[in-house]
Amino acid sequence: MIAKYRFGHPFPTDAVVQELPLSAGAPACFTVTEEEDGTHFRYALDKEDCVFGLGEQARGINKRGWIYENYNADDPNINEARQSLYGSHNFLLIAGEKPFGVFFDSADRVLFDIGYTDPDELVVVAKNVDVYLVEGESALAVVHAFRTLIGQSYIPPKWAFGYGQSRWGYMDEGDIRAVFEGFRDNDLPLDAIYMDIDYMLDYKDFSVHPARFPDLGKLASDLKAEGVYLVPIIDAAVKVQEGYSVYEEGLANGYFCTDSEGIPYVVAVWPGESMLPDVLNPAARLWFGSQYKALLDQGIEGFWNDMNEPAIFYSKGRLAAAIDYVVSVKGQNLDTHAFNKVSYAINSLHNSPEDYAALHHNVEGKRVCHAEVHNLYGYNMTRGAAEYFAEYAPDRRYLLFSRASYIGAHRYGGIWTGDNSSWWSHLRHNIAQMPGMDMCGFLFAGADIGGHCYNTTEDLLLRWLAFGVFTPLMRNHTTNGSRDQEPYRFKDIAAFRSILSARYALLPYLYSEYVKCALRGEMLFKPLCFEYPEDRRARTVEDQLFVGGSLMIAPVCDQNAAGRYVYLPARMKLVRMKNGRPCSTKVLEKGDYYIPVALDEIVFFVREGTVVPLAKPAKNASSVDFTRLHWLKFIAAPTAYELALDDGFTKSGIEKGLTAVTVEP
Amino acid sequence: MIAKYRFGHPFPTDAVVQELPLSAGAPACFTVTEEEDGTHFRYALDKEDCVFGLGEQARGINKRGWIYENYNADDPNINEARQSLYGSHNFLLIAGEKPFGVFFDSADRVLFDIGYTDPDELVVVAKNVDVYLVEGESALAVVHAFRTLIGQSYIPPKWAFGYGQSRWGYMDEGDIRAVFEGFRDNDLPLDAIYMDIDYMLDYKDFSVHPARFPDLGKLASDLKAEGVYLVPIIDAAVKVQEGYSVYEEGLANGYFCTDSEGIPYVVAVWPGESMLPDVLNPAARLWFGSQYKALLDQGIEGFWNDMNEPAIFYSKGRLAAAIDYVVSVKGQNLDTHAFNKVSYAINSLHNSPEDYAALHHNVEGKRVCHAEVHNLYGYNMTRGAAEYFAEYAPDRRYLLFSRASYIGAHRYGGIWTGDNSSWWSHLRHNIAQMPGMDMCGFLFAGADIGGHCYNTTEDLLLRWLAFGVFTPLMRNHTTNGSRDQEPYRFKDIAAFRSILSARYALLPYLYSEYVKCALRGEMLFKPLCFEYPEDRRARTVEDQLFVGGSLMIAPVCDQNAAGRYVYLPARMKLVRMKNGRPCSTKVLEKGDYYIPVALDEIVFFVREGTVVPLAKPAKNASSVDFTRLHWLKFIAAPTAYELALDDGFTKSGIEKGLTAVTVEP
Repeated sequence: MIAKYRFGHPFPTDAVVQELPLSAGAPACFTVTEEEDGTHFRYALDKEDCVFGLGEQARGINKRGWIYENYNADDPNINEARQSLYGSHNFLLIAGEKPFGVFFDSADRVLFDIGYTDPDELVVVAKNVDVYLVEGESALAVVHAFRTLIGQSYIPPKWAFGYGQSRWGYMDEGDIRAVFEGFRDNDLPLDAIYMDIDYMLDYKDFSVHPARFPDLGKLASDLKAEGVYLVPIIDAAVKVQEGYSVYEEGLANGYFCTDSEGIPYVVAVWPGESMLPDVLNPAARLWFGSQYKALLDQGIEGFWNDMNEPAIFYSKGRLAAAIDYVVSVKGQNLDTHAFNKVSYAINSLHNSPEDYAALHHNVEGKRVCHAEVHNLYGYNMTRGAAEYFAEYAPDRRYLLFSRASYIGAHRYGGIWTGDNSSWWSHLRHNIAQMPGMDMCGFLFAGADIGGHCYNTTEDLLLRWLAFGVFTPLMRNHTTNGSRDQEPYRFKDIAAFRSILSARYALLPYLYSEYVKCALRGEMLFKPLCFEYPEDRRARTVEDQLFVGGSLMIAPVCDQNAAGRYVYLPARMKLVRMKNGRPCSTKVLEKGDYYIPVALDEIVFFVREGTVVPLAKPAKNASSVDFTRLHWLKFIAAPTAYELALDDGFTKSGIEKGLTAVTVEP
Repeated sequence: MIAKYRFGHPFPTDAVVQELPLSAGAPACFTVTEEEDGTHFRYALDKEDCVFGLGEQARGINKRGWIYENYNADDPNINEARQSLYGSHNFLLIAGEKPFGVFFDSADRVLFDIGYTDPDELVVVAKNVDVYLVEGESALAVVHAFRTLIGQSYIPPKWAFGYGQSRWGYMDEGDIRAVFEGFRDNDLPLDAIYMDIDYMLDYKDFSVHPARFPDLGKLASDLKAEGVYLVPIIDAAVKVQEGYSVYEEGLANGYFCTDSEGIPYVVAVWPGESMLPDVLNPAARLWFGSQYKALLDQGIEGFWNDMNEPAIFYSKGRLAAAIDYVVSVKGQNLDTHAFNKVSYAINSLHNSPEDYAALHHNVEGKRVCHAEVHNLYGYNMTRGAAEYFAEYAPDRRYLLFSRASYIGAHRYGGIWTGDNSSWWSHLRHNIAQMPGMDMCGFLFAGADIGGHCYNTTEDLLLRWLAFGVFTPLMRNHTTNGSRDQEPYRFKDIAAFRSILSARYALLPYLYSEYVKCALRGEMLFKPLCFEYPEDRRARTVEDQLFVGGSLMIAPVCDQNAAGRYVYLPARMKLVRMKNGRPCSTKVLEKGDYYIPVALDEIVFFVREGTVVPLAKPAKNASSVDFTRLHWLKFIAAPTAYELALDDGFTKSGIEKGLTAVTVEP
């Protein structure tokens, strides 16, 4: 049961796929007031209520106790003080006496004070918003109803469920081939190598550096022959450069964002002065999407869309003003206050609200201020690509994921959680982010494993990979200048081999569960209390998750830890895997345990009454044999399991590929 | 057994108080090589070895798996990537088959690669260093030997063990009195109110703003009559201003740091252009210490020394060069690279290595480059104050603690851990820092409870205070512009009252344990494995500590947690306290437990064979009656306990005050 209420004049987001009639008034559970900064929705929280949702946001699974502002932010300094991250996913699930969900569908910023100002009150502040109140008998039922409202989640090709290696700093074809060889020579599985901005010529979208990558098509096909896919990055902004066709076409057709007068607005990002494709204009969106053809034609089948909050290093106008300010103080005896103004002049250029307010879109001939529709930018960049892919090869699945997002984008691609850091706390945060993203439809998701900013350590990378074995996107990525982060760069390569092998052994399970969750609007990663709502202990567990229908995981998230505590909300079977093979199992009763976990081990827990299909580890996803399976079982009677046996790359094959098999005890 | 080795020509640090003969060669357990960047000391780590020490450094109790560089740093952005914090404490304890300690006594930077580059190797890189190899039968014996080497830790007056309230932003006498009234009216105990930089006139050291604080002496005495002490901040740098006596005296006597030619070097900090007292010159150090008289004479009995890494916002010369650079690019079409150079020109002014290299000290008539003796600055600023206090009132104890430090400073004052953040991860870090600081002599230590940067939450502040109940310095402090952080600003004031009361109930125990640890060179905060070295599980516990001889604590460090797991390495008695009174006890056998802990509860564990004296909670430390005690007991036979029954403010009374009492079962 979903009711829809409207406040103000919401800009259409296309987040939902169901047309619902508008209900009169306001949702009864909220006290609604109109105030200067927007409509306030107040809800009295019971001491026992948990509040879930908000997608990839900061802090824990239970969002209670902090204040969040959903407004897509390009800022890699992710920490507990942050209120906005890369994506805005305005869905809350209030799990109290009777759970319910609420979706604040607004293209503008939305504030969520979840017991921060007053521990016993939830306050949401939004402007021009459609509010969807979602009821259901349980948390899972509420999520299912919401996911039905927003439409089916994206399903990538099967190879995208393999392990991917990335870094900013693979400079040329030689570097890419060396990575492939590093994996091959060390007997490490691999499905994808990612290409960061260095592959482009002068950071121009859809260009390829002719000296560094003289024949991208041949490189792509050579690697594909080995089962490895190349995945280039695409940035939002288009370099201002005469003779550059993307720039010239966009400019000629009025496809770039403008100022309030309609003059194209110059911002600077990696290529220096650039313009932003006006992806809120459907014609411009599809035009930008059609540019991917340049790479598709060379055999590229996967893309990551970046810098699409959109990131702005500075705008031409504001930089000139900042420099003028510095010039004006030359020769003065600056006190601290005056010095701080100099610093501020330079440091406030980045992603400035003034630039977002100055930028405009052309929507059906009307100029729309970017600041008010900011959260839709990355979504529509990804949508444009996906819409074009559907023209280019209608039945083919492509890998596509984005940094910035809004609900709705989950139908077109996945997301990664942006520029995190090589910190144990970010592994912990990654765990907490997964169920929130699932609730909001972003099933295909993952973090930069090992951490993007700063330097990783061997043990952090191993532990993070041990969690990443379970995330649909399993990509190791790091920043330019950081420590080498490919598994074969470390001392204990055998430990990495052991961990990565588990991904491939579990692929029949992970892929099948993913496909079923996407088709049926279910969560892949579930907090313990979603399955055990009456269990008060389960409500406080922030570092364990159910993955699909059969497994619970409890990743180790502390340096120098030899294991961790695990809470079992029910009887389960502990499984230890090494080298992609189960090496021991043990039935444990409901309760608390300290479980030792070695750096080269994968430990998980199989739920009673379920089975888990395991394949023989393979060197890539395409080589995994989904038909010769070993079944991990914790059953007393014959049990059905539905395998996804599709071809892995067509859209039409997905549903047909679902195959029920019966497993004997 | 301590052996001393010398490499190069170490600058005298006065860190140790024992004259030891130099041993020839190098310590046998290290492979020592001379390389371009200094002397390398390599040690092969066994898989089971733990490495402790490094004082307040980043990461966990076991420092293994990261790379640290001890070089005092003014940078509030504390996270897992950090290698240098505010203090440099170059002592390591390698706890393997046979534990040993090693102290790298160098005024210059020292690098500690503790299994970061190679998980199985410790590499220390130092220049001009005395290396002390410390042997002992156990970790505790090694620490005791090292603490004997470096001399007795500072003991503050008893009131300094009470709760202190601080914030940057108490602007005037009215604000200070309002804080006092806030505590009094809400029946919350209080011993100190801290004054941040706003009390000064134009941020001039030892000045008092005449309009904001028209009669500081009266304010101090009014509050002292209520048992509350005022504790002003003192910054390192002295404002350049004609007519300002501290500046003029310093300049006339050559007491400021200079450039390499002997010209006073102008840096800028809060007051704008300033000069740094040359605290490495004994005459200048004592002169700067004698300036505290201005405040001592007004009844001030406590100080916190800040900005003494030393912090430098910019130097006059480098700022001019940076502005010139920005001026030079005016009108140019900047690409990203050129823009980054503009940002860097401004943002690299702060605490620049170039300024540290340009600054010079005058040591016995020789100019010494600051960069090479950087870590001694804060130490000697604090030493100067302490040396002057000993002149001013030889037998009186004053509260004194510092942000920057080096081993040796522990004899003169305490430290706080600098500008942390209102993050749960920083509460966790605070726990991990305590034993490291203890090993290095800094017994009087604590963090900014509730967090300095950003906004706290009610639950974080309560949980952090529940840990802070056990830290010798228990101060709630936050930054300018952050959310109000006084306990009475929150909803559940009763919960804060309950937590703060426990501090005062436990004061006879905490003060007595502190005094004994200081006098006897023992640790107040001990990792579990220091007491249970054979217990492999105990080695991995990073969030529980022994506090003194009788207690173990296990603070709750997660938002929305209703309790936590606790490992008991032996049979202990669980005690729950509310409102400063024990409300339940339960004997638990060795093992693992999930322990619920409410926000208003203090939970700890009494070791078998020990007792804990409890007083009646009081409104301040002076009002706590150390003679009418309730004993928490976990004993089967009469047990002796030594109470510190000194007057709380004289030095000579401390040892005489130690009084053994026998407690019956």
